[in-house]
Amino acid sequence: MIQAIERKQIEDVQQDLQSVQALLERQRLVQSLVERQPGPNQSMVETLVHKQHEVELRAKLDSMHSADVAYILEALPLEDRLAVWDLVKAERDGEILLEVSDAVRESLIRDMERTELVAAAETLDADEIADLAPDLPQGVIEDIFRALPVEEREQLRAAMSYPENAVGALMDFDVVSVRADVSLEVATRYLRRFDDLPDHTDQIFVVDRDEKLKGVLPLAKLIVSDLDRDVGDVMVTESITLHADDDADEAVQAFERYDLVSAPVIDQAGRLLGRVTVDAIVDFIRDKSDSDALAQGGLRESEDIFASVWGSIRNRWQWLAVNLVTAFIASRVIGAFEGAISELVALAALMPIVAGIGGNSGNQTITMIVRALALGELSPDLARKLFTKEISVAIINGVIWGGILGVIAWLLYRSVPLGLVMTAAMALNLVLAAVMGVLIPVTMARLGRDPAIGSSVMITAVTDSGGFFIFLGLASIFLLK
Amino acid sequence: MIQAIERKQIEDVQQDLQSVQALLERQRLVQSLVERQPGPNQSMVETLVHKQHEVELRAKLDSMHSADVAYILEALPLEDRLAVWDLVKAERDGEILLEVSDAVRESLIRDMERTELVAAAETLDADEIADLAPDLPQGVIEDIFRALPVEEREQLRAAMSYPENAVGALMDFDVVSVRADVSLEVATRYLRRFDDLPDHTDQIFVVDRDEKLKGVLPLAKLIVSDLDRDVGDVMVTESITLHADDDADEAVQAFERYDLVSAPVIDQAGRLLGRVTVDAIVDFIRDKSDSDALAQGGLRESEDIFASVWGSIRNRWQWLAVNLVTAFIASRVIGAFEGAISELVALAALMPIVAGIGGNSGNQTITMIVRALALGELSPDLARKLFTKEISVAIINGVIWGGILGVIAWLLYRSVPLGLVMTAAMALNLVLAAVMGVLIPVTMARLGRDPAIGSSVMITAVTDSGGFFIFLGLASIFLLK
Repeated sequence: MIQAIERKQIEDVQQDLQSVQALLERQRLVQSLVERQPGPNQSMVETLVHKQHEVELRAKLDSMHSADVAYILEALPLEDRLAVWDLVKAERDGEILLEVSDAVRESLIRDMERTELVAAAETLDADEIADLAPDLPQGVIEDIFRALPVEEREQLRAAMSYPENAVGALMDFDVVSVRADVSLEVATRYLRRFDDLPDHTDQIFVVDRDEKLKGVLPLAKLIVSDLDRDVGDVMVTESITLHADDDADEAVQAFERYDLVSAPVIDQAGRLLGRVTVDAIVDFIRDKSDSDALAQGGLRESEDIFASVWGSIRNRWQWLAVNLVTAFIASRVIGAFEGAISELVALAALMPIVAGIGGNSGNQTITMIVRALALGELSPDLARKLFTKEISVAIINGVIWGGILGVIAWLLYRSVPLGLVMTAAMALNLVLAAVMGVLIPVTMARLGRDPAIGSSVMITAVTDSGGFFIFLGLASIFLLK
Repeated sequence: MIQAIERKQIEDVQQDLQSVQALLERQRLVQSLVERQPGPNQSMVETLVHKQHEVELRAKLDSMHSADVAYILEALPLEDRLAVWDLVKAERDGEILLEVSDAVRESLIRDMERTELVAAAETLDADEIADLAPDLPQGVIEDIFRALPVEEREQLRAAMSYPENAVGALMDFDVVSVRADVSLEVATRYLRRFDDLPDHTDQIFVVDRDEKLKGVLPLAKLIVSDLDRDVGDVMVTESITLHADDDADEAVQAFERYDLVSAPVIDQAGRLLGRVTVDAIVDFIRDKSDSDALAQGGLRESEDIFASVWGSIRNRWQWLAVNLVTAFIASRVIGAFEGAISELVALAALMPIVAGIGGNSGNQTITMIVRALALGELSPDLARKLFTKEISVAIINGVIWGGILGVIAWLLYRSVPLGLVMTAAMALNLVLAAVMGVLIPVTMARLGRDPAIGSSVMITAVTDSGGFFIFLGLASIFLLK
């Protein structure tokens, strides 16, 4: 009897979400009806209906993948979210906490008892507990340590010791390893003893007596090879290996470039510590591009869309404050030229154009440089060449766009000198933007900071204040007596 | 004899790059020396030295992974890049063209003869040729079609028929499939006939006589199961399947959420067409976040860092032009209030603050909404709630930050009414930013456009012009006679 395959699609989960929402809605409706028409059996009816809905919801949730439950929790407002969270089977809590976003995870953990948290953690692997650790209260972590068997306790200690951006933080301990001097037949028999191999096992690791990595044996190779041969004959000895202390970005580049599914992680002595799998890499890439986008947009961290008004204000105030300071500085630059503006009020109308185009052009340069830096393509020699190129682009753009604006200023205000000042100011501000657009990210990278974060704010600050200063300064010198 | 594993790391490739650069440099040096001191044997010496360097370089390149050669080509200026490209073995051209960035690919293809391009394409699979197709001259594509065997020709036609954002564009045809009614023993024997399974084969597909997908058989399961059992008993029947016409984003979400390595692609009738593998997904995610970052930074497309000055200007002019138009509109808004400014010149200094903070706050709202839209979390019901929330945040922020700035304006210019106008303008512009910050991305999404691209420019345009209008308008009404 062969069944047809059951298709499962992302869209199905959207429907699941809607049915969960409908159930919660119906429950609220019944509750409000009962409250409005109080009768003798009110609490009993309420309890009955409530129970029935609960059973339905629970069945729905039990049939869903943990990642889908996580998705639904993220898409529900706080009250509904916690109602659903209470209905999730306790043994799935750990897995689901791993899947939800940071902001939602915080809201769920706040709702849980200390013992519940410890129980949830115990269902997870050491590397997964380490991922949750930053969000757990200190006392809970101590309880978890105490509850773990010795080996896992050591693994957890190791996993928690790596900084967030190290390969060690992406590593898991689900390695299957064999010796080189056994036959494939023996290796296969050994593998049969597992009920199931760990997820993402595309290769098993070949180690010697001291746990030193000698090679890898891809499963695909194991399957197509003659079982009489030895592991050592069939294994691949040239392979990407990672160090636990390496930068996680290096692992990402290796996975992207060589299309890996898993890679072994070794220590300085060459001993096998664990492995990194492609799902951890995908999550890392997504988190990184998310947090870059958030920082670009001026948010401190990923925001729960159902965060309270105060939560949102707290998440956003830092960037607003930074922006306020830079805007204030720009404003004082203008303030210094109030005499010039009151003499020639056209300056007030034209100055934001000079500043704005400078910011735009500077951001273009920065985007390109940040990208080259991320790919490791920017040698000092190259940086000098780029510098020259960006300045050339700026001068040409300055003459073209500055020229256009100069003509417009001349036509609007019937003043050739004003048009010339406009052109000169545009060209100079674009050159300033090019210089700072190269210098800011390169300097940040040299200082060991991530040039993707904050560069944009800095260049805009420079081109705003600089643009106002250049334009109003030139105007003071050449247009006023 | 067991060898120790040869570690390979991303850093090694950086060293390869340096040694390639050193070789090219030495070659240039010798050439210039010979040119400066012309002698009887000049051309012979030159040729000899040149040959020697060429041999060294060629050996270096042959030993490298195609993706690493691609990396080195990207990091070299045009002249050196083409010199290295000529030394790469012709049969690797296709693979390497697949790996380089779009901008670099264009520069390499421009350097190649028509017959070279056809030969390079013939080394690739149909889905890979389809990936290159947009960059190939029309005539070359026709030649390739003629050169392909019938089956691959059909595959290429199919692969080229999908839009860039469909699952079909991510699909490859490297599927290994078996029937459900054979034993695992027979299936294993069938697999042994392959020299090697296709990359990323973590599961084989189970189909019936009509090629209809019945289930999947994970390799890990094949290895741990009793070989006497039938494929149909062991296979997994509930599995993620994709449709070739589905949106690629759906495939990405499925891979991220369920940590897949590969997934089958079927047609409307349930027949197996091909598969999508995680490396294609990783590349897609990277391309998407790259192009989002580029658009955010105001670049049309990924720019070769060695692009000529004119190439860069061409790549950047569109966004500068858009910015110029929006800046010009803002400037005309100010122009309309020149009377007010000449009466109270402090307005000129304060107005950029109102506009700037509005833009910053609007971008925060947009970033959050774009993210919720991308995750499919934004139901119409939810959008209404968010609307209310964002406006509340804006009002509170407006009162706080507007209050601070009002006090500063009052202290700077000794005018309480000016301080009050400042506060009111800030609050109103933040509310405008919140309203447009929700409306712009939601409307773009409804119109089927990608809200990640262009939203930021639009909100800044609105908050600039709007901020100037609100502030100068309020000032005209309340501060001037």
